[in-house]
Amino acid sequence: MMTGSQYIESLRALKTEVYFMGERIADVVDHPAIRPHVNAAAVTYDLATDPAHGDLARATSHLTGRPINRWTHVPRTREDLVRKAKMMRVAGRITGTCFQRCVGMDALITLHSVTHDIDRKHGTAYHERFKKFLVETQDRDLMSGGAMTDPKGDRSKRPHEQHDPDLFVRVVERREDGIVARGAKMHQTGAVNSHQFIVLPGQALGPEDRDYAVAFAVPADAPGVIQVFGRQVNDSRKWEGTIDQGNATYGVVGGEALVIFDDVFVPWERVFMLGEVEFAGTLVERFTSYHRQNYGGCKSGNLDVLIGATAAITDIQGTAKAAHVRDKLAEMAHLVETMYSGALACSHECSTLACGTAIVDPLLANSAKFNTARYYPEVTRLAQDLAGGFLATMPSERELANPRVAGFVRKYYQTRADVPAEDRLRLGRLIENM
Amino acid sequence: MMTGSQYIESLRALKTEVYFMGERIADVVDHPAIRPHVNAAAVTYDLATDPAHGDLARATSHLTGRPINRWTHVPRTREDLVRKAKMMRVAGRITGTCFQRCVGMDALITLHSVTHDIDRKHGTAYHERFKKFLVETQDRDLMSGGAMTDPKGDRSKRPHEQHDPDLFVRVVERREDGIVARGAKMHQTGAVNSHQFIVLPGQALGPEDRDYAVAFAVPADAPGVIQVFGRQVNDSRKWEGTIDQGNATYGVVGGEALVIFDDVFVPWERVFMLGEVEFAGTLVERFTSYHRQNYGGCKSGNLDVLIGATAAITDIQGTAKAAHVRDKLAEMAHLVETMYSGALACSHECSTLACGTAIVDPLLANSAKFNTARYYPEVTRLAQDLAGGFLATMPSERELANPRVAGFVRKYYQTRADVPAEDRLRLGRLIENM
Amino acid sequence: MMTGSQYIESLRALKTEVYFMGERIADVVDHPAIRPHVNAAAVTYDLATDPAHGDLARATSHLTGRPINRWTHVPRTREDLVRKAKMMRVAGRITGTCFQRCVGMDALITLHSVTHDIDRKHGTAYHERFKKFLVETQDRDLMSGGAMTDPKGDRSKRPHEQHDPDLFVRVVERREDGIVARGAKMHQTGAVNSHQFIVLPGQALGPEDRDYAVAFAVPADAPGVIQVFGRQVNDSRKWEGTIDQGNATYGVVGGEALVIFDDVFVPWERVFMLGEVEFAGTLVERFTSYHRQNYGGCKSGNLDVLIGATAAITDIQGTAKAAHVRDKLAEMAHLVETMYSGALACSHECSTLACGTAIVDPLLANSAKFNTARYYPEVTRLAQDLAGGFLATMPSERELANPRVAGFVRKYYQTRADVPAEDRLRLGRLIENM
Amino acid sequence: MMTGSQYIESLRALKTEVYFMGERIADVVDHPAIRPHVNAAAVTYDLATDPAHGDLARATSHLTGRPINRWTHVPRTREDLVRKAKMMRVAGRITGTCFQRCVGMDALITLHSVTHDIDRKHGTAYHERFKKFLVETQDRDLMSGGAMTDPKGDRSKRPHEQHDPDLFVRVVERREDGIVARGAKMHQTGAVNSHQFIVLPGQALGPEDRDYAVAFAVPADAPGVIQVFGRQVNDSRKWEGTIDQGNATYGVVGGEALVIFDDVFVPWERVFMLGEVEFAGTLVERFTSYHRQNYGGCKSGNLDVLIGATAAITDIQGTAKAAHVRDKLAEMAHLVETMYSGALACSHECSTLACGTAIVDPLLANSAKFNTARYYPEVTRLAQDLAGGFLATMPSERELANPRVAGFVRKYYQTRADVPAEDRLRLGRLIENM
Ligand SMILES: Cc1cc2nc3c(=O)[nH]c(=O)nc-3n(C[C@H](O)[C@H](O)[C@H](O)COP(=O)(O)OP(=O)(O)OC[C@H]3O[C@@H](n4cnc5c(N)ncnc54)[C@H](O)[C@@H]3O)c2cc1C
Ligand SMILES: Cc1cc2nc3c(=O)[nH]c(=O)nc-3n(C[C@H](O)[C@H](O)[C@H](O)COP(=O)(O)OP(=O)(O)OC[C@H]3O[C@@H](n4cnc5c(N)ncnc54)[C@H](O)[C@@H]3O)c2cc1C
Ligand SMILES: Cc1cc2nc3c(=O)[nH]c(=O)nc-3n(C[C@H](O)[C@H](O)[C@H](O)COP(=O)(O)OP(=O)(O)OC[C@H]3O[C@@H](n4cnc5c(N)ncnc54)[C@H](O)[C@@H]3O)c2cc1C
Ligand SMILES: Cc1cc2nc3c(=O)[nH]c(=O)nc-3n(C[C@H](O)[C@H](O)[C@H](O)COP(=O)(O)OP(=O)(O)OC[C@H]3O[C@@H](n4cnc5c(N)ncnc54)[C@H](O)[C@@H]3O)c2cc1C
Repeated sequence: MMTGSQYIESLRALKTEVYFMGERIADVVDHPAIRPHVNAAAVTYDLATDPAHGDLARATSHLTGRPINRWTHVPRTREDLVRKAKMMRVAGRITGTCFQRCVGMDALITLHSVTHDIDRKHGTAYHERFKKFLVETQDRDLMSGGAMTDPKGDRSKRPHEQHDPDLFVRVVERREDGIVARGAKMHQTGAVNSHQFIVLPGQALGPEDRDYAVAFAVPADAPGVIQVFGRQVNDSRKWEGTIDQGNATYGVVGGEALVIFDDVFVPWERVFMLGEVEFAGTLVERFTSYHRQNYGGCKSGNLDVLIGATAAITDIQGTAKAAHVRDKLAEMAHLVETMYSGALACSHECSTLACGTAIVDPLLANSAKFNTARYYPEVTRLAQDLAGGFLATMPSERELANPRVAGFVRKYYQTRADVPAEDRLRLGRLIENM
Repeated sequence: MMTGSQYIESLRALKTEVYFMGERIADVVDHPAIRPHVNAAAVTYDLATDPAHGDLARATSHLTGRPINRWTHVPRTREDLVRKAKMMRVAGRITGTCFQRCVGMDALITLHSVTHDIDRKHGTAYHERFKKFLVETQDRDLMSGGAMTDPKGDRSKRPHEQHDPDLFVRVVERREDGIVARGAKMHQTGAVNSHQFIVLPGQALGPEDRDYAVAFAVPADAPGVIQVFGRQVNDSRKWEGTIDQGNATYGVVGGEALVIFDDVFVPWERVFMLGEVEFAGTLVERFTSYHRQNYGGCKSGNLDVLIGATAAITDIQGTAKAAHVRDKLAEMAHLVETMYSGALACSHECSTLACGTAIVDPLLANSAKFNTARYYPEVTRLAQDLAGGFLATMPSERELANPRVAGFVRKYYQTRADVPAEDRLRLGRLIENM
Repeated sequence: MMTGSQYIESLRALKTEVYFMGERIADVVDHPAIRPHVNAAAVTYDLATDPAHGDLARATSHLTGRPINRWTHVPRTREDLVRKAKMMRVAGRITGTCFQRCVGMDALITLHSVTHDIDRKHGTAYHERFKKFLVETQDRDLMSGGAMTDPKGDRSKRPHEQHDPDLFVRVVERREDGIVARGAKMHQTGAVNSHQFIVLPGQALGPEDRDYAVAFAVPADAPGVIQVFGRQVNDSRKWEGTIDQGNATYGVVGGEALVIFDDVFVPWERVFMLGEVEFAGTLVERFTSYHRQNYGGCKSGNLDVLIGATAAITDIQGTAKAAHVRDKLAEMAHLVETMYSGALACSHECSTLACGTAIVDPLLANSAKFNTARYYPEVTRLAQDLAGGFLATMPSERELANPRVAGFVRKYYQTRADVPAEDRLRLGRLIENM
Repeated sequence: MMTGSQYIESLRALKTEVYFMGERIADVVDHPAIRPHVNAAAVTYDLATDPAHGDLARATSHLTGRPINRWTHVPRTREDLVRKAKMMRVAGRITGTCFQRCVGMDALITLHSVTHDIDRKHGTAYHERFKKFLVETQDRDLMSGGAMTDPKGDRSKRPHEQHDPDLFVRVVERREDGIVARGAKMHQTGAVNSHQFIVLPGQALGPEDRDYAVAFAVPADAPGVIQVFGRQVNDSRKWEGTIDQGNATYGVVGGEALVIFDDVFVPWERVFMLGEVEFAGTLVERFTSYHRQNYGGCKSGNLDVLIGATAAITDIQGTAKAAHVRDKLAEMAHLVETMYSGALACSHECSTLACGTAIVDPLLANSAKFNTARYYPEVTRLAQDLAGGFLATMPSERELANPRVAGFVRKYYQTRADVPAEDRLRLGRLIENM
């Protein structure tokens, strides 16, 4: 297992091709647009290697018996699933944002069982292949991007019906030593600071879509892999200062990229599905269930930070004791616990797949995700209500360095005599950016 | 009455002192951070002067009988109030954002009746004074900032109890020729492109708060008036390009500023309340009712733009015919009409104040505002759901100029064969930024 | 115009055939299951004839120039529509329940314009015929049931596709002197205490459904008209006492009946549509818009009663001053004003049909109805929360006459020393039954 | 352990004094108003004794090691708590209503730990006394009413401040052999068919309220215990027939009674708290947490029945395949799983009290309860929407025996050719009454 700083160093060795704002990024790790995401992912390493966190983010590989980071572990028991959910909440509380390593984890977990099931039906040998890959991923403690979402073009058409056949990732060549893949995956969380990508089909497929039924893994710096780092809300604040970002250390989203596969070669030992269209649906369903479980955990952790910040700001502003303020904070907590309850409940009501993997209850996981999507904006709305209008109109942190206005800003943004304005501005920016 | 471009030119004559991002802004009108807001405010001029819009934004002064811009008109009839509401929706549809001139309008309307009522009780002569000021404002077709919201410090304390007595605007000196005011007003919409400010108390006051019971008007470039333009979500995109802004012409909020009154002198003819604490509450209540009426209008106009953009994107993405998509668009429309219904209803159920001003029904106006606040985020949530994940992860517009990636971005963001990717990106950015 | 008591007397002259609980009702007017509904409908008469209510429920016939009850009036102006909405709220506040005369009113209003439009297209003479009928209805001040909702059978099938052709009302014979109709209409509000029925198609129809495109009027006691009075929640309490009913005078719903047309003869002068299938949709749409307008009025009036009762019970129970209680009462009021705003707004934004009838804005009317349906249960939920558990478990009023327990019931249901338990029980029953 | 029918027989031996509708009920077990509740409670016996249900409702006493009914078991492990939650859902699905035995169960569980804690602080001997009582309750498999809710009078006053000191249950005499209690408990679920009552304080108490800090057990037919059975929605239908009741076998609520303690003597061995005011709050908090856990289970079981009935009716009415119908059924399921998730989550996150009792997480239990209260009406609203207007206006079942109308009712309430109208009416009545 690596520590957070070992992880960061390991990224420097990669020769990824990443573009942002019209230019290629030379040093991905230290670029201000990306560094916060690197830091957030590093938390997944520190959590597993720091003994203070116990076994929460550490597990024992069922393949090797060796200690591994839980973000590379395939859950075998109810307790594994519950810990997965709890690990999410804890990491969500530390970072206050997306720590990016879950899509890759769920891709690993899902492929473990789906390769097993394909082999049983088709007599293929994907599962053994996959297990070798998994052991390597576990032992090297790699961070994997989970690449499912295709551009998809016209949503009323199937992959093979699109005006451009590349709107879903597909095999364009089957060679002796492997395959050649073309297409792109969108919104790839943590892609620019991952060691490798696990590419999976993103939806159920029909018989005419055989070339799209392909799952494989590639290093993040494989030839032909080109990344375009997406814009984020307020991203320019990252290179302007620290206060205005809100969460300068860890960033405010996952750091998503468009990952282009410009005829990328994949050797056979990294190909885990090829043409078995009827398993695409199963794969997506399982992946989705694990992923929905996460949401109930990580988002409740993130919102714990928001609730704390909101409670602090009401305290600073002298409103903490008002009945409506306490009611709103209680409502925020209630909504967050509802999200988390779903994550716990779907873990508890798990079942076991043929290969021994524990899988969450899909109905309850769906409910967890649904509540998270429904209530996340409600919780932020309540936070904004309690914080007040200054969230939307605060001056730039640079004013604090302008002698003509700094004094006025400090004077008029202060509320209580014992709390400097800067604390309030920092809290406000944190809330604004969640 | 001025046209939009006359308005813009008139601003160049002002010598306002405005700071932003740590520096003084030399040319307020053409600064990329501010220009969109200038354009949006200009719509309020064009709407009244363009005959194509009929009498919607044009009115007849009850004081002079001359044609005036409705944004400077004091409503005398139910029809006036209804037109005010409708004018909001139309301007909201044109700009897709805040056009900033309503706070000043409501300040004018409110002072008209409150000065009348103070005089009746105290035998003062504020009302005549105010009417002169109003005629000048109407004839010169000035844009006024309405300045009510004080910094307020510790919200559990009254103005005179704060650790810093300047946390609410107050009179620090009464001179023969006028008064000297100190303090600040926050979140001042359209301040940097207003001709003058109308300063009003922001809450009900008690007897110990006499120095805070002050209402007056000052030119925007009066000595001692210092403005700090606030940051906005994604503001840096304004000087980076056009697509990523979403609404490059009109901006995405009102352009709020912190307006500091650093011992500003106000001659008596511009003082409209001084010490009559018991009228502060009345003033705030009336202002608030008019302001709540507006919300139901302008926000429903803004959201009409969002509904249109969302419908267009579902069309481009091939989902427009799905039942859930139509249901969600219908729900968006329903919520928007609920907001608007409130604005119409409170206008219809108006009453008349002692001075002849028509005033909306406060309970219904409150309901309108409440629905607007409650459903605005719900409408945007539905828009984001229908648009999909690309809103949050789209690449910078600058990639379109980078030959290595431009082709890929165009290829993978395209959905239908007949609609270029750029259209989709533009629509996406519009939705993202509302 | 009749007074309420003249209306009640006029009902005694009818020879309607009504069944309930397995038996024929001999005396409809005085039957305890029905009398409250008669009383509620009588309010529509008293409101128009009592000068204290001004012109709210009185109008001038555009056909005769004679004063008429607004419930028989065809609106010609915006003001007419606004009064219709306001009349609803007032009647809803007096009765606290459904006063039943609106469906018939909307049927009259709708037929006025639809007959006009059919004639224009088909050269028929329905409109003159209808106007004669309307004048008679106005002059005799009749209460009309509006009969639209067919049994409909399998909702996935059109009328002519049903296994039983009578599942929608249809013409089974065209004779020289008139037509013969067969079928039934369900959920007929106020049917058992109406003078006549106005029968309309209940949905858009296709060309094969010609026999179903039929509109006509019949006396409530025409041969072949058989009514089955429906059960209601807690209906048996009507013949057990008064307290437990909650609203003993006016009842708790509209008093709905199944109205069977067992081959009923209709003379030509009462036939207003026959075979013009393409107008069925128009008719339903117009009717529906008027009807949705009503909802925002009558239900807000009903809920005013509920809010009052709830406020009174919190006062009696000593909770009225708690912040959460005041917040909940304010939320109830806000929701009610939202309903009402819709009714006013759709009235205000009216347009005029070819025949001169004023018609509400359909989008806004839809919004009014939607909010009413969505928030009515929310308002009652809040009322139940504030009243507490006793709503659901209160003892029978008969215990108050049982010497062994009466004292205990009085002792333990009393809250404040100055309010007898019986008052609290009455209020509780009123809230329970709304 | 008793079977359901043994339980029913055991009730006949009791000499309870029960009043209803102004009269004393001679034969409680067979009275039509009460029998359905007896049947529902009997399900708690059958569930534990029928081997087909496994260990769900059966447990092993931690005191005696003997097999007992889980409704008398004190949970010692996480698994015990999870089973408690699951048992709720299963029993809720069988009965479709309240099975009444949970308040008593939670009272037993709570007293186990609270007596232990009081003894530790005060050196009293309540815990041993309570354990003897518990063993007897377990071995005799008694049904206990849990009596907490006092009449409470003016809610702004403490017990000793009320105008009538009996508005909270209190000790009026301390004798050598025991105590004498006076007062009443309201809304007592299952009281009339319980063997005994466990009486607990219903809220936190202050030092002046010592006489109100009393917990004890009494047989349901102890001298001075007088019960008044409360009215229920549509209760008269119970003695009129079967269809109109909806759930004729098990009833539609818990069957609540006002239980009066008219100077009831309680021997010392049944007194479990006397004057230790500081434990009243602890007791209420613990009880409440267990009780909130239940809600997420039993109500989701009940709503499973409602979802099934609603799905069936959409099938019969030909609407089952419409997109909006499927969406609404999915939303109903989602809300129900949200309730249930809370029950599972608070069980999973349990802790252990000093005496070894496992207790649910109070924050998550609160969230479970809150979601249940918030969404239950939403689920029924959706059911009513999908079923349609006939729920509210259906004719009495007695019409089916009236030859003049029976044929018409059967004809017009039928939807599909292959499903008789009676099935639809039954389903409709079930939905109406939930
Ligand atoms: C985009 C924008 C444009 C604006 N434009 C203008 C403008 O042009 N002119 C102008 O004058 N103002 C303007 N405002 C200011 C606006 O009117 C205020 O934001 C609003 O009145 C709330 O005041 P606040 O921001 O100080 O928040 P606060 O008043 O601090 O409220 C924050 C939270 O604290 C609670 N709270 C506050 N005080 C108490 C208390 N004593 N007890 C209990 N709870 C309390 C509130 O209920 C709320 O939940 C604008 C604001 C925004 C966001
Ligand atoms: C911050 C963020 C991080 C992400 N991280 C990852 C990641 O790491 N890896 C990864 O693979 N993906 C990732 N995603 C992608 C995410 O899984 C997708 O956004 C999601 O699956 C929706 O897909 P979409 O964005 O293409 O939207 P769409 O699928 O286009 O959906 C938009 C709307 O259209 C509707 N719709 C779509 N298709 C149809 C249809 N055929 N008929 C009717 N309606 C339809 C949908 O219901 C929705 O309302 C991320 C997304 C975000 C926002
Ligand atoms: C079907 C049913 C079954 C039940 N079964 C049982 C049972 O088996 N055993 C049992 O002991 N109880 C039972 N209960 C009682 C139940 O626990 C109570 O109804 C509940 O605790 C609320 O108490 P209440 O009815 O007295 O309402 P109240 O406590 O009067 O509450 C009504 C409203 O007043 C507010 N309120 C109350 N006090 C205050 C205050 N001091 N300040 C501000 N606001 C206040 C509340 O927040 C609420 O909004 C049952 C209730 C029902 C409806
Ligand atoms: C108290 C009360 C009073 C009334 N008073 C009158 C009155 O005076 N006069 C009068 O004419 N009517 C009256 N009605 C009838 C009322 O207008 C109808 O109840 C309403 O139009 C719904 O019709 P329905 O009950 O047949 O339900 P349905 O139309 O069966 O609707 C039930 C559910 O099925 C869905 N559904 C129905 N058809 C389809 C389809 N084809 N595809 C997909 N989904 C479908 C609906 O969306 C709904 O969710 C009254 C009703 C009530 C409850």
